[in-house]
Amino acid sequence: MANSTGYLFRLTTFGESHGAAIGGVIDGCPAGLMVDSDFIMSELDRRKPLYAGSTGRQEPDIVEFISGISHGKTTGAPVAFLVKNTQADTSEYLDIENIYRPSHADYTYEQKYGIPFSTGGGRASGRETIARVVAGSVAKLFLKENGIEIYAVVSSVGKLNSADEPEFEAKMLELIERTAEAGDTLGGTISCTIKGVPAGLGEPVFDKLQANLGRAMLSIGSAKAFEYGLGFQASSMKGSAYNDQMTAKEGIVSFLTNHDGGIQGGISNGEDIVFRVGFKPVPSVKLPQNSVNRLGEKVELTIGGRHDCCHVPRIAVVVESMAALVIADHLLMNRASRL
Amino acid sequence: MANSTGYLFRLTTFGESHGAAIGGVIDGCPAGLMVDSDFIMSELDRRKPLYAGSTGRQEPDIVEFISGISHGKTTGAPVAFLVKNTQADTSEYLDIENIYRPSHADYTYEQKYGIPFSTGGGRASGRETIARVVAGSVAKLFLKENGIEIYAVVSSVGKLNSADEPEFEAKMLELIERTAEAGDTLGGTISCTIKGVPAGLGEPVFDKLQANLGRAMLSIGSAKAFEYGLGFQASSMKGSAYNDQMTAKEGIVSFLTNHDGGIQGGISNGEDIVFRVGFKPVPSVKLPQNSVNRLGEKVELTIGGRHDCCHVPRIAVVVESMAALVIADHLLMNRASRL
Amino acid sequence: MANSTGYLFRLTTFGESHGAAIGGVIDGCPAGLMVDSDFIMSELDRRKPLYAGSTGRQEPDIVEFISGISHGKTTGAPVAFLVKNTQADTSEYLDIENIYRPSHADYTYEQKYGIPFSTGGGRASGRETIARVVAGSVAKLFLKENGIEIYAVVSSVGKLNSADEPEFEAKMLELIERTAEAGDTLGGTISCTIKGVPAGLGEPVFDKLQANLGRAMLSIGSAKAFEYGLGFQASSMKGSAYNDQMTAKEGIVSFLTNHDGGIQGGISNGEDIVFRVGFKPVPSVKLPQNSVNRLGEKVELTIGGRHDCCHVPRIAVVVESMAALVIADHLLMNRASRL
Amino acid sequence: MANSTGYLFRLTTFGESHGAAIGGVIDGCPAGLMVDSDFIMSELDRRKPLYAGSTGRQEPDIVEFISGISHGKTTGAPVAFLVKNTQADTSEYLDIENIYRPSHADYTYEQKYGIPFSTGGGRASGRETIARVVAGSVAKLFLKENGIEIYAVVSSVGKLNSADEPEFEAKMLELIERTAEAGDTLGGTISCTIKGVPAGLGEPVFDKLQANLGRAMLSIGSAKAFEYGLGFQASSMKGSAYNDQMTAKEGIVSFLTNHDGGIQGGISNGEDIVFRVGFKPVPSVKLPQNSVNRLGEKVELTIGGRHDCCHVPRIAVVVESMAALVIADHLLMNRASRL
Repeated sequence: MANSTGYLFRLTTFGESHGAAIGGVIDGCPAGLMVDSDFIMSELDRRKPLYAGSTGRQEPDIVEFISGISHGKTTGAPVAFLVKNTQADTSEYLDIENIYRPSHADYTYEQKYGIPFSTGGGRASGRETIARVVAGSVAKLFLKENGIEIYAVVSSVGKLNSADEPEFEAKMLELIERTAEAGDTLGGTISCTIKGVPAGLGEPVFDKLQANLGRAMLSIGSAKAFEYGLGFQASSMKGSAYNDQMTAKEGIVSFLTNHDGGIQGGISNGEDIVFRVGFKPVPSVKLPQNSVNRLGEKVELTIGGRHDCCHVPRIAVVVESMAALVIADHLLMNRASRL
Repeated sequence: MANSTGYLFRLTTFGESHGAAIGGVIDGCPAGLMVDSDFIMSELDRRKPLYAGSTGRQEPDIVEFISGISHGKTTGAPVAFLVKNTQADTSEYLDIENIYRPSHADYTYEQKYGIPFSTGGGRASGRETIARVVAGSVAKLFLKENGIEIYAVVSSVGKLNSADEPEFEAKMLELIERTAEAGDTLGGTISCTIKGVPAGLGEPVFDKLQANLGRAMLSIGSAKAFEYGLGFQASSMKGSAYNDQMTAKEGIVSFLTNHDGGIQGGISNGEDIVFRVGFKPVPSVKLPQNSVNRLGEKVELTIGGRHDCCHVPRIAVVVESMAALVIADHLLMNRASRL
Repeated sequence: MANSTGYLFRLTTFGESHGAAIGGVIDGCPAGLMVDSDFIMSELDRRKPLYAGSTGRQEPDIVEFISGISHGKTTGAPVAFLVKNTQADTSEYLDIENIYRPSHADYTYEQKYGIPFSTGGGRASGRETIARVVAGSVAKLFLKENGIEIYAVVSSVGKLNSADEPEFEAKMLELIERTAEAGDTLGGTISCTIKGVPAGLGEPVFDKLQANLGRAMLSIGSAKAFEYGLGFQASSMKGSAYNDQMTAKEGIVSFLTNHDGGIQGGISNGEDIVFRVGFKPVPSVKLPQNSVNRLGEKVELTIGGRHDCCHVPRIAVVVESMAALVIADHLLMNRASRL
Repeated sequence: MANSTGYLFRLTTFGESHGAAIGGVIDGCPAGLMVDSDFIMSELDRRKPLYAGSTGRQEPDIVEFISGISHGKTTGAPVAFLVKNTQADTSEYLDIENIYRPSHADYTYEQKYGIPFSTGGGRASGRETIARVVAGSVAKLFLKENGIEIYAVVSSVGKLNSADEPEFEAKMLELIERTAEAGDTLGGTISCTIKGVPAGLGEPVFDKLQANLGRAMLSIGSAKAFEYGLGFQASSMKGSAYNDQMTAKEGIVSFLTNHDGGIQGGISNGEDIVFRVGFKPVPSVKLPQNSVNRLGEKVELTIGGRHDCCHVPRIAVVVESMAALVIADHLLMNRASRL
């Protein structure tokens, strides 16, 4: 199941960073959805390196739909798509191909599959997220028809927190540039809000809405943490201060706070769904590191080439995309809840 | 799929807190596993109220295996089990049955299923975790055969952190007692370590080990947050300080640190798997709260009856159980990775 | 997945013939369905031995619902049920417990699970179908709300064909009695018609309606063949004679024939769905047979005890039940087909 | 789930006959399998029109692997592939695009998805089987490593039965030519044998080996019937004549007959697995037919263009491919059966 996600709105992805293409298949997109290619391309642009220190690899990511769309609309057939890799140059890896990069997937892929990571590890690349963004943007179009919109923003980079800083973006860019120059890297956090989700989405017990959102976010490369509503902060509060008390006006129920982040008992309550994801720093630092080669010998490794210093700004659209896939899936599943 | 989890070692649960029984079916437990009933009963005991302020409901939770075991060993057939509810008394809820309890599942279940939460919401009870613990203890027995063990401990309750306090347990009990007397409630965090996991478990891309662990933990009632390795803390570190550098001795690879919490690229690396889960305070505070009734009218609600003031100490075994189910599933899946 | 079937209306079963009980869990039955216990009991009665030569084992099969029903209606929670085995007497098998019964599951279960078939093979008993009938009857109640009804009849027993015989039932009983007296056994065929299925159910490509119906039927013990519409007969016809030509009256489309059995391109066309299932004779003949024991020695086996001579009349309700589960599942899945 | 099949060796397909390409993704092929492209191309050639009366459409079906293979071997990553449609000319359908072709999927697709079948029905084309053959040939390579081979042959075309005819192939070609000249079409049956399957494959209860084989075969376009072992013939036999009695020589068990077709209790017994599939005649007859147009008006339809008169000879490789996918999946699943 490894490369598929979702029950009814289901994405399967494929493709390695240095292969021919990255792609995916959406099985279960309802028929009749207008597919806005410009929107999808604009979403793909959001995951491209925009900031100083980002990878110089600047491919024009062009999405090519292979099936499932006719006269601009989905037909109910699987929607397959490809984004070709135009710069599949592996030469820069040649000199380190027998050394495991620390905190990368090199060692673990090799342990799992029994083949050299340099040929087998291509799924662990950031380019894999292209398929998530294309499929997520189709999901967003479906959600938009249902009045649902999703917004993710960078809430911190390194020790810089958007809540504390008046000119966060400028300071963030400066920090990234400075860190890149030092050959080091940064992580950060992304906050996401989903607006317009009706009450009732989410499936108890194991497919609670937060469980599936959490799985989706933690499946993004380098994600280390997920929380929704007040998250970890909730664990130190008292119930009397935490509980989302309720009120009503002319029969319309609403909540006085949204500490639960729009989900109670695993099911949406109609409030904004709010969550936060934490990402570790990019592992490809340029400073020398202790490592091991495939012969089991200690070595010192210095990674060359061009790499992102901080990938968090590019991941916001990936977070939105995964959220869109989860909500679209639950929206369809919920149609089966009642007679 | 709501009430099932796992691909090959697969648990389906059923039963409401005030119905006849809580139960489950494990489909896919390998044949030949010795099922140690004493161990399972001792695990169930760990989720019983041990601390002041816990619910007075003190049922003897006796597990009854219905199928799948012969001469003390699993046969390959589904292992079904029941734990009867001996105190299925719903009278205490009668007076509030038309008022939504804040931050409970009452309102959302009703929005989803279109039936009164007092009859439909029984799956959102803490007793549902009984099935997780029984199945998790079977999974633990399977893991033990493979040299894998799991330990979860309470790492904080309210503002009390085990790392900062010399006599954490005594202070925790005191805090819980004091808070219970005030009619209020507490949440907390649980830290879990999985020892002995071989390198190679976890399935890229969407079934990364942390993604499935995160889903499992976030499916536990009142869980609000999940992180593994350094978690959110990683997001403020530099790559040079964060990366788990490697070394080798006589060809045996090891890691100088374990910031990644034993998982890289979604696959175990042979180090301890380490994660933390955050739980919100128990929603059943005894203090008056603003709420709404089923007619859509504002009301003030005071919840009576006996309830846990803090459920976190009881949840440690649930965390272990869910972890065991995930690892057992991945252990079986991994058998299909190579020729 | 072995013991589960269905995507959205999903049944998991458990229990062995000589264990405590047979049971199941329906996950995904929509909330609000009135569960008519009398109907379910009357369905269970239909799988009891009614004919001469049937097994003398005459347990009162009482279904006990454990969860998922409140005030007589489904709540959206999993519907779990048990039917206790009141005659779990294994003594009659003692003398043959080390000899494989020909064309039974004894040898294959043992090869698969590595444990003696006498303890491990209980899932291969006809009593396993109890869970199918209980769940199928719940599915039928759901289908009835949607105007869908299912009828299965015995169309042949041995060489006796209902189409050729004026007093089929009497002759069938006579044949069964005569064959039982000779210590031999019979098989037969069952024909099934599903009325009221709207056009549009079925999912291309791999979940075509006939594919899922076929899987469901072939999962019934001793089923050897499945065909729908004209089935194998179609393979010898010319297209001009076979095709279901169409007509219309005041815009209402209808078909001049129903050779396709109500399914075209894997999707229902609004006509009756018609299929037929073939069952091999009961393997427990009382005549001496060549066999092998668990030590790998040739032996002559004579099976004693009371066994059905022909189980086909009892299987009609099982065929209906499996059909109901498949159609209920597709009815829910189809809700996701359009925007 | 519609366009995916298999649990561990899992194929997802996409692409329409008149779109850009047909393709698929194999998720779960074990790492380290040598992928022999020549073999795959030769398999694809077997589904091309070889006989008089077959469709004139003669595209060079070139398979292009996008991912999951490195240095000629699978890496454990999803194996995605494309076969481009070089003759995607839809003009021949223009004149009938508003008339439902009898016994085609036109009417049912439109009922399901609510969009004109001429744009939405492309998944119902025979070209969809290309993806099955490519994936099936990869599965065959995996099976070959495990000593398993699969052979399917045409056992009848129209009323011509290979068992009765000394020069079946010549007579078959003659019959097809004659029927094509008359503007009519033919169906037939295919018999398949799987050699080398070890005892123990197959999962009770709902994933019995025959159930999954049956589903796979009935998912092939125009399949109407499936039987294994003696199939429908078994239903008219007595148990004493039918049962596969057993013998042993130096501890090695064998069967005196193979009426059960290599499967007992849903699990392989080590004998050849034998089954037969029935296909209806090609629906595109050139003779005038009664039909209905999209306005709900009665019309007479005459289908032009070039079409197969009989597709059965081309389907043999599709039958083998689907069988290979099922057996590969069960081979991997069976690894989880024991401790």
